[in-house]
Amino acid sequence: METEKSRRSVTILHNGMIVTMDPQDRVFKNGAIVVDGDKIIAIDQSALILREFAGPDVEIIDLHGRILLPGFINTHVHTSQQLARGIADDVDLMTWLHKRIWPYESNMTEEDSYISTLLCGIELIHSGVTCFAEAGGQHVSGMARAVELLGLRACLVQSTMDSGQGLPEKWGVQSTDDCIQQSQKQLYKKHHNTADGRIRIWLGIRQIMNATDRLLLETRDTAKELKTGIHMHVAEIPYENEFVMNTREVDHGTVTYLEKIELLQTNLLAAHSVWVNETEIGFLSRAGVKVSHCPAAAMRMLGFAPIKEMLDVGICVSLGTDGAPSNNRMSIVDEMYLASLINKGREAYLKGTTDPTALPAETVLKMATVNGAKSVLWDNEIGSLEVGKKADMVIVNPFSWSMLPLHDCVSSLVYCMRTENIESVMCNGQWIMKDRNILKVNEGEVFSLAKQASSELLKRAGITIPSRMNVL
Amino acid sequence: METEKSRRSVTILHNGMIVTMDPQDRVFKNGAIVVDGDKIIAIDQSALILREFAGPDVEIIDLHGRILLPGFINTHVHTSQQLARGIADDVDLMTWLHKRIWPYESNMTEEDSYISTLLCGIELIHSGVTCFAEAGGQHVSGMARAVELLGLRACLVQSTMDSGQGLPEKWGVQSTDDCIQQSQKQLYKKHHNTADGRIRIWLGIRQIMNATDRLLLETRDTAKELKTGIHMHVAEIPYENEFVMNTREVDHGTVTYLEKIELLQTNLLAAHSVWVNETEIGFLSRAGVKVSHCPAAAMRMLGFAPIKEMLDVGICVSLGTDGAPSNNRMSIVDEMYLASLINKGREAYLKGTTDPTALPAETVLKMATVNGAKSVLWDNEIGSLEVGKKADMVIVNPFSWSMLPLHDCVSSLVYCMRTENIESVMCNGQWIMKDRNILKVNEGEVFSLAKQASSELLKRAGITIPSRMNVL
Repeated sequence: METEKSRRSVTILHNGMIVTMDPQDRVFKNGAIVVDGDKIIAIDQSALILREFAGPDVEIIDLHGRILLPGFINTHVHTSQQLARGIADDVDLMTWLHKRIWPYESNMTEEDSYISTLLCGIELIHSGVTCFAEAGGQHVSGMARAVELLGLRACLVQSTMDSGQGLPEKWGVQSTDDCIQQSQKQLYKKHHNTADGRIRIWLGIRQIMNATDRLLLETRDTAKELKTGIHMHVAEIPYENEFVMNTREVDHGTVTYLEKIELLQTNLLAAHSVWVNETEIGFLSRAGVKVSHCPAAAMRMLGFAPIKEMLDVGICVSLGTDGAPSNNRMSIVDEMYLASLINKGREAYLKGTTDPTALPAETVLKMATVNGAKSVLWDNEIGSLEVGKKADMVIVNPFSWSMLPLHDCVSSLVYCMRTENIESVMCNGQWIMKDRNILKVNEGEVFSLAKQASSELLKRAGITIPSRMNVL
Repeated sequence: METEKSRRSVTILHNGMIVTMDPQDRVFKNGAIVVDGDKIIAIDQSALILREFAGPDVEIIDLHGRILLPGFINTHVHTSQQLARGIADDVDLMTWLHKRIWPYESNMTEEDSYISTLLCGIELIHSGVTCFAEAGGQHVSGMARAVELLGLRACLVQSTMDSGQGLPEKWGVQSTDDCIQQSQKQLYKKHHNTADGRIRIWLGIRQIMNATDRLLLETRDTAKELKTGIHMHVAEIPYENEFVMNTREVDHGTVTYLEKIELLQTNLLAAHSVWVNETEIGFLSRAGVKVSHCPAAAMRMLGFAPIKEMLDVGICVSLGTDGAPSNNRMSIVDEMYLASLINKGREAYLKGTTDPTALPAETVLKMATVNGAKSVLWDNEIGSLEVGKKADMVIVNPFSWSMLPLHDCVSSLVYCMRTENIESVMCNGQWIMKDRNILKVNEGEVFSLAKQASSELLKRAGITIPSRMNVL
């Protein structure tokens, strides 16, 4: 019975262009892959695979030349902010935070977080994402329900703050003990390694201006104890560095201070890391810290991170979308395109001309796949298509106006591909989107829920959006 | 008969959110528009319009709350470069030009240009474009055939050069007389005001390093004589300005020289205009020159143009995609998103922080519509939804994961909308796309033609693209 059952779950996908992202950078022009349960058990030329694995109980899918890729990994996304898309466009940073985002987040319910994560998850899947790192939001239990249902893989964290000025009254300030016990240890106990192992719990620090030294140090030690990662916003704006210099007696900013207190470690995922100097890049590199680069949010709110310099010294840089109110498009497909453009363009300021050769397509594709997997400490199981790894993968249909002609497959994936080319998505051996239809939830129902929940939440939070035009 | 015939062509679109882009910035929350033949004859609240215009011979379309917008105008696109998408990614500028683009362009046939423009036009329509300004390519007759067939509106130009080093032998150097007679006057005579008035012929100057003074001056005078516009690449790279300073005895670059020879006039569409100083911005403003800003190409190849400064002094700045080998995505939808991000981001270099309020969504939407119309000297007939103007418009379906929730309609159009939200497109009163199906050509047939033509053209031109990965 065991044998029969395992045989029944075997699927062969053949006749596809397989971009493995493995250490040998192998691309099979006419390749096939065999999935057994949640794992990849073989990958090779189509003819060889069909000869060896085809059989009466095996499902065989002809890719008709489509491209097969590892699922993308979004290493910085605020899923509970999805209902806030469009509430804070074109406003300054203080309005953004105090008048829009904090009122929104402090008024949301667990059900709001669930609906928000469902809506965000649908967008992530449509853009080929199979795994994401939550950046820190509200109600992890709501996020976990949505992730379990959608079939995604995720590292979830609660936004954790134990100090700081201007926080909404509703929130008050959580004690350090509560942060460690409730927002970290209890959530870990309840949700870590749930949903067939697709959900992991990480520890979140919102940012240094909202964290006491005790929170920083105990989070560092708790992460070591629980063997999990820490997700933290790092060096986002120049003011943050000034604040750290004034309050913590170091000669530069956040990264220098985190080095001093030994929080820079291989399990730290540092989001943004825009305002770092050469010495600090050295600290990040030597400590094996992972950096999540969020191109759209960087351009809009933060500034240009020295990504090329980080990659040059071996820092593992991956890609994130940030939250809907900081970007609006929650698509790693667009972030790949942007990452390349921004990092070619910023050379114009450094050298007087752009460098069209900077951050080539193959590097960007690595950032969205293997580097993403390393950033979420999951590269033993995901990030590339290799025997023994989990079957997290994406089928791309390049045969349309958006990608033709296909002279350079890898650069076309980065520069031409759009979400509409992402046809089907598998996570953990299960199809979660097929032919652009989300399989595990009804999209229309989620849209209705989201419309109602977001409108009620804005009312509750007293957020109004001024009109830009003369609406009649 | 006349009355009956005109009655039969009347269409009412009602129950839509109509973003008119008219001088009063009117948005009808539940609006309707009446199209008679190729013109808009009424626009108002749905109830009023239905009462006044509904009748037995009138087609009535319920928009079910969808958004209706003027068609976008792409003011800088090389349609004959579409078959070259992906042949020059991540290479330096000299490789781009000498090893890839010139061999490609100098080997293309009239039929190649036709197929290239068909493929490009399909992408333009899918991204909501109803009118474009060709940036200067090969075989205008091929472009004109494609534009006529697709149902688009366009200002076409031949790439014109009468000097310059390193041009392919096949081309040689055209004489100034040939440029004026063949590439300008004859094309004007043959194609201007054809395709029901949808095609206009402009005069093209590729760029100052490939133009003698005589070509510049005679183009200026010919444009005046023919009452048409001039499309020229201006101040693209710092080297161009140096070249002009060395060869033409002026103290800055191209713009300063064009001012000196009185080429800066209201009918000049200056593409890119990245490397201009404050004095030159003043010249452009006083002369009423139009600037086409191409955000993706700028980041990748050129640098950050001072767009905010230009808009501040009243220069009409519009949006362009540039050609497929300079951008890859030929979508004004993406360029709107990018324009906002780039111009918020570049403040980081000028001021130490980004300015999230720079280039707000309503400004970007104007750049893609009314400013586009002014740039192509056609704003008396297109660019906004107003009574008496041509019926060039786009239906956007915002009710999907990419745009929900819809808290701020105008900013969502700029920051969230993707090509997949563009549902239907009308140009000159004719539907050219309905429910995402191109109506005037068979997309699949164009893809096949494009695949074959581009592969043969690359072979003929001796262009090979090195592999980025280990292809098996």
